[in-house]
Parts: sequence; structure tokens; C-alpha cells
Amino acid sequence: MNNQPFRFELLHTSTKSRARVGKIHTPHGIIDTPGFVAVGTNGSIKGLDNPTVEELGVQLMFCNTYHLMLQPGSKTIKEAGGIHTFINRHQPIITDSGGFQVFSLMYGGVHQELKSQGLKKTENSVLKINEEGVLFRSYRDGSPVLLTAETSIQAQKDIGADIIVSFDELPPSHTDPDKLRRSLDRTHRWEKRSLDTHLQNPNNQALYAVVHGGIDQNLRKKSAEYLGSLPFDGYAVGGSLGKTREEMIEVVKFVWPLLPTDKPNHLLGIADLPSIEACIPAGVDTFDSAYPTKAARHGLLLTKRGRVRATAGGNASYHRPIEDDCTCSTCQRFTLSYLCHLFKAHELTAYSLATVHNLHFMVQLMADYRTKILENEI
Amino acid sequence: MNNQPFRFELLHTSTKSRARVGKIHTPHGIIDTPGFVAVGTNGSIKGLDNPTVEELGVQLMFCNTYHLMLQPGSKTIKEAGGIHTFINRHQPIITDSGGFQVFSLMYGGVHQELKSQGLKKTENSVLKINEEGVLFRSYRDGSPVLLTAETSIQAQKDIGADIIVSFDELPPSHTDPDKLRRSLDRTHRWEKRSLDTHLQNPNNQALYAVVHGGIDQNLRKKSAEYLGSLPFDGYAVGGSLGKTREEMIEVVKFVWPLLPTDKPNHLLGIADLPSIEACIPAGVDTFDSAYPTKAARHGLLLTKRGRVRATAGGNASYHRPIEDDCTCSTCQRFTLSYLCHLFKAHELTAYSLATVHNLHFMVQLMADYRTKILENEI
Repeated sequence: MNNQPFRFELLHTSTKSRARVGKIHTPHGIIDTPGFVAVGTNGSIKGLDNPTVEELGVQLMFCNTYHLMLQPGSKTIKEAGGIHTFINRHQPIITDSGGFQVFSLMYGGVHQELKSQGLKKTENSVLKINEEGVLFRSYRDGSPVLLTAETSIQAQKDIGADIIVSFDELPPSHTDPDKLRRSLDRTHRWEKRSLDTHLQNPNNQALYAVVHGGIDQNLRKKSAEYLGSLPFDGYAVGGSLGKTREEMIEVVKFVWPLLPTDKPNHLLGIADLPSIEACIPAGVDTFDSAYPTKAARHGLLLTKRGRVRATAGGNASYHRPIEDDCTCSTCQRFTLSYLCHLFKAHELTAYSLATVHNLHFMVQLMADYRTKILENEI
Repeated sequence: MNNQPFRFELLHTSTKSRARVGKIHTPHGIIDTPGFVAVGTNGSIKGLDNPTVEELGVQLMFCNTYHLMLQPGSKTIKEAGGIHTFINRHQPIITDSGGFQVFSLMYGGVHQELKSQGLKKTENSVLKINEEGVLFRSYRDGSPVLLTAETSIQAQKDIGADIIVSFDELPPSHTDPDKLRRSLDRTHRWEKRSLDTHLQNPNNQALYAVVHGGIDQNLRKKSAEYLGSLPFDGYAVGGSLGKTREEMIEVVKFVWPLLPTDKPNHLLGIADLPSIEACIPAGVDTFDSAYPTKAARHGLLLTKRGRVRATAGGNASYHRPIEDDCTCSTCQRFTLSYLCHLFKAHELTAYSLATVHNLHFMVQLMADYRTKILENEI
């Protein structure tokens, strides 16, 4: 921990697009932008330990307040000395508000997520939503949990990430315009309350707002302008971004010019390769997604020649690294044939080795984008 | 690879018991005895990569020919340059003959094993057993596979471990005396054929015999004497060792004085802590078992204060290592509270971290036994 205050340093904006290169300074070090943010929901990138993730050069890790509140509990993390100490990561961490997960519970998203973790499904976990916040049942022990702007920020203070996120509502993509407008207004009130709570005890943390408004340009403009007028430290863009990648890119292209340029920004939950390629010229600073790590566990390896299925025909006797010129510890030490074998044999080690490769690929990809932006090639 | 020929060096026999300290020299380095042999069925200790296992000081790794023959196939391993190159382990490896697994198929043992790996059960996989060997169906693709002394040794030549094991029959523990006698005679013929096949092409490998005879002392004596008269490089003891630990210890105490003292010996499939403690004074050199690694994946941590369940009450807020004086990389970097959290959240990383600790514990335990034997305390 260098204890440096949070600060965004803009190094260069391309002459060719809105693409930009910067450094986000945090108490736990620097995040080079554009940057990929790995998702470690429960304080762990699945299959890796955190020192290994640091060595890979993953400069920002995303943990989920919803999950951490329920297990092990934000107070336990505080007692342990905060999230960095608890999980043994010395580099920057971001937590979300818990809003995304709790509202996904209502709309089904998290059901699938829970299912894939082998946990019990919990029907109708959301008990009540009102101006104060949302009351839901813990999927772990069935106890009621009240999540509000104040409790979310307090939990995030206890957890102690470098970057925390305002409490927001996540309306489903099919919400009608009138409901969406009311939801946006309430989200703005919740975000303002989040900011007020945060400013009572900044705790050396940075608070990001979440710009909402679905695919409605007027609402997106209103949200960007309102939140942009408040002293947040950065701006995330969330909520529904449409049903296709094309719609998402339209929203990003529309919203980004409305965001304050002197603050860092973040695109929530999207980091597949075509989306990154399309969104960097719009000026996106950071992207988070479980995609590269989840793909790894499904045996999908990211390479310069495209996505390679570890168990595909031919790989069983391909006694060379996934990529000859890859410098990751998997490619330096193991062949694709061994990886193919481990996946076919359902060996746990397969997941770790593939995850290392995919994270290394993402780190390298973003470094390459930064070079290209500095050279005004993008 | 040092390419040294296989050789057993007896350093000391206790003045108090038959316990002994030695070094098994192999083309891939030394195995200090008594030593613990970790089980990496498919060429992988579950959740760890092989360089990490080497760093832990695990001097011998047990791989299963039955599994490797079916996936990826012994020819693929040969093409890759042998098992050491294929799995990237530079230290000694032992493979078994495949007999244990294929006969377990008949008697149900492997059904549970397959079940726990999430693979499909295969009923009646053994198609035929006769003097030649055993014909069974591959659980992977249903194709028929003929396993004989000759094909097992050939597969083990292709795989290329430092130590290989003779093909034997594994009669179930309830076999009647007459059948057991006939099985033993056939096993001896199979082992002799294994030795003859091996000697045609020693390939810088050592061949161990497997002493059988169940809990019948006459048969055990006959087996030890017959196999002891042949030029095997070492002696494993297998087959039924009784239904209780007490019976097993009786068998070990009876058989061990009958084994050649100038060759290394191995107790097959047993390495729980009380059994190790009871068998070392009998003169056992090496022990293999999946127990320490399997226990780790079930959240059972081996410590000097006994077995600790990671998720036990109190551990959620125990913000210290599993053991304060443990030098394993898990204890050096993570707390028991974090490990407890990872197990409760069903995170893959939990399995890796616990496995590191348990393997380190086993390596340290055996080093401590060696010191005690050298000081004639055992």
C-alpha cells in the first residue's frame, strides 16, 4: 500500500478517436488504462491464488459486495484488516454495490449464476423494494438482509476496496419508458445518498457513480449530466445496454462523450474481445467481465489466432505450447496436448492453467491497445 | 534427468526396530525413505501444477497406467517424449500395472472412484479374464482393451516412469482359500512374464514385484519367497491386507521380514497417519495414498494438533495461518479464515491451497520420521 490518494492521470487522447491512455492512481498502486478488470466474486479468481493474479499483471480485481456480505460477511473482512489483507492482494480492488446481484435475483440472472456454482436456487428472494432500498433473503441462511444506499456503502467501507460503487437499481431491459424514468429518478436519489454516506467517511476510497437510462438516449443524457455534476471520483456505465452487441456499442458511443473527461470511467460487465475493440475508440478506460476466466474453465483458450478449444481434434498430439510466443507460465511450462488431456480427464489443474493463459492474454491485449492509442493508430 | 541407474542405498537401520532410512537413486533423482508418494492418477495432483508439487518436495509421484492408457493413451505420452516431459515433472515417477484398477472394476471399487470424478459409471466393464490377462471395455469410448503382463509392461515402457510395477490380479478380500491360491499362482506367472518382458528392454526403468497372498500367512510367505528369488528391483506389497487397520498391520509385520533387505519396498495404497506410524517400525520404505490430497479437497487440514476441518466453527474469524510455524506457501500467505471462506463459497482455489498444505505436512512428517530413525528413537 502506497497510501497515495485516488487520482486520474490522462496521458494521451488519440488524434483519431476518443480512445485514451491514462493511469488511475490508487492507495494500492496504479491501474493503466484502458485496462481489463478480472472478476473475483468471492475474493478469488477461480482456480488461482491472489499473488499469482498479481504476478500476471492484473491491475484491478472486481469483488462482489452482495456475495461478500453474505459470505464471509463484511464485518469479518473488516476484522481481518480489510479485503486486501483478507485475500492477500496488494494491488487495487473494486467492489460493486450489491445492487446488480440483488436485482438480478428478481429478474432471473443470478439464478443461473447460482446454479452454475452448484448452490441452491432461491425463488422469490427479494421480499420488498421501496424508496429506502431492497429487502431480500440470504441464499446462504435464509435470513433477511436490507440493502440500501447506506448499508451498501457501509459494507463497502468495511470491505475496504480502493474503488467502491454507488447503490443503484437495475431495471430489466423490457421495462416500459415510464417505469424506467421512475427507476432512474430513484437510482439518482440512491446514488446521491451513497455519495453523502461516502463523504462522511471517505476512508481513502474512491466512489464511482453508475450512469443508467437503459437504451433511452434522453434518460442516458439526463443521468450522465446529473451524476456528472456531483463530485464522484469516477463514472461506471451500467443498466441495460440493449439486447445485442450493436445496441450496446450504440449506447456506449452515445454516452461516453457525455461523461466528465477528467475522471476515469468503467463499462460494467462487458469485456468480450469484439466489444473491447469497438468500445476503446469511444474512450472506455476499464472493462470488467468474467468471460476470459469462465471461458478458460470451459476449455476455451484466447489466442492471437482466435479462440481455441483445448480438447479440439489435433490438440491431443500438439506437443507445443498453446502459442509459441506466449510468455505466460502455462505456455512456458506446458503443452497444449497436456492441457487437452487435463480437460478430457476433468482435472482441476486444467482450469488453473487455462485461466493463467487467458488472463495473461487479456493483460497483454490491453497493453497492446495502449501502445496503439499512444501511436494514434486507434 | 541425471540418468543415474536405479539403486537403493540403505543408510541406517534402527537399533530399536526394523525401521530404516535409505535413498532410492533413480534417473530423475533421489527418493529419501521412508517417503510419502503423492497420487497423481492422470499425471496431475488435483489442483496443483507439477512444478509446484516438485517445489513442495514430493520426491515420488504415483500415476495410474489404467487411466493413462485410456486417456491420453500411452502412445501419445511416448510421442510427447515420455511422462516426465508430458506432465513437466523432473523428479521420479512410478506407474502401476493397471491391474488394480481393472480388477477393482469387477469388485466395485472403481465405480465409486469414477463416480467421485463425475464420470459415467460403466457396469460389467470386465469382459473376460483368463491365463493371458483381462479384456475390459474402456470407460471413455467403450472400445475393448486387452491388459496382459506384456501389454501392461509395454504401456509402462511407453509412459516411461522411473519405477514400473508387474501385472497382477487383485482378488477381493472375501476370496475363498482355494481360489486365492490359484489367483496367487497365476499372479506369479503374470509377474514372471512382466519381468521377462521388462528385461528385454530395461529402458533405464526399475521394475517392482507385487507380493500377494491376502491375509493368508502361508501364501504371503510363498509369494515373498518366490518373487524375492527373481531379479526385481524392488518389492511392493498389495492385494487384500484385511478388513481393519489392525489386520493390515499384522500382515505388514509378517511380510516385511520376508522381503529382500537390499531392495526398496513399497506399501501400496496406504498412507493415513496411524498406518504410517505403525508400519515404519516394520521397515516400510515408501507409502502412497490419495488420502492427504483427497482430504484437502474435502476441507480437512492435516496439522500437528490433529485434523482440522477448514469450515469448523471459529475458523471463520481465525485470522492466522492454519499453523503458525508451518512453512508451506499456504500458511505463509493466507489465513485459515480466508481458507474457511473459500471452502464455504465453493471456490476452486480452496482445493489448491489446502492440497499444498497437506502435501507439505506429509513431506515434513516423513522427514521427521527419518530423523527419528537415524537417532534410533523408533
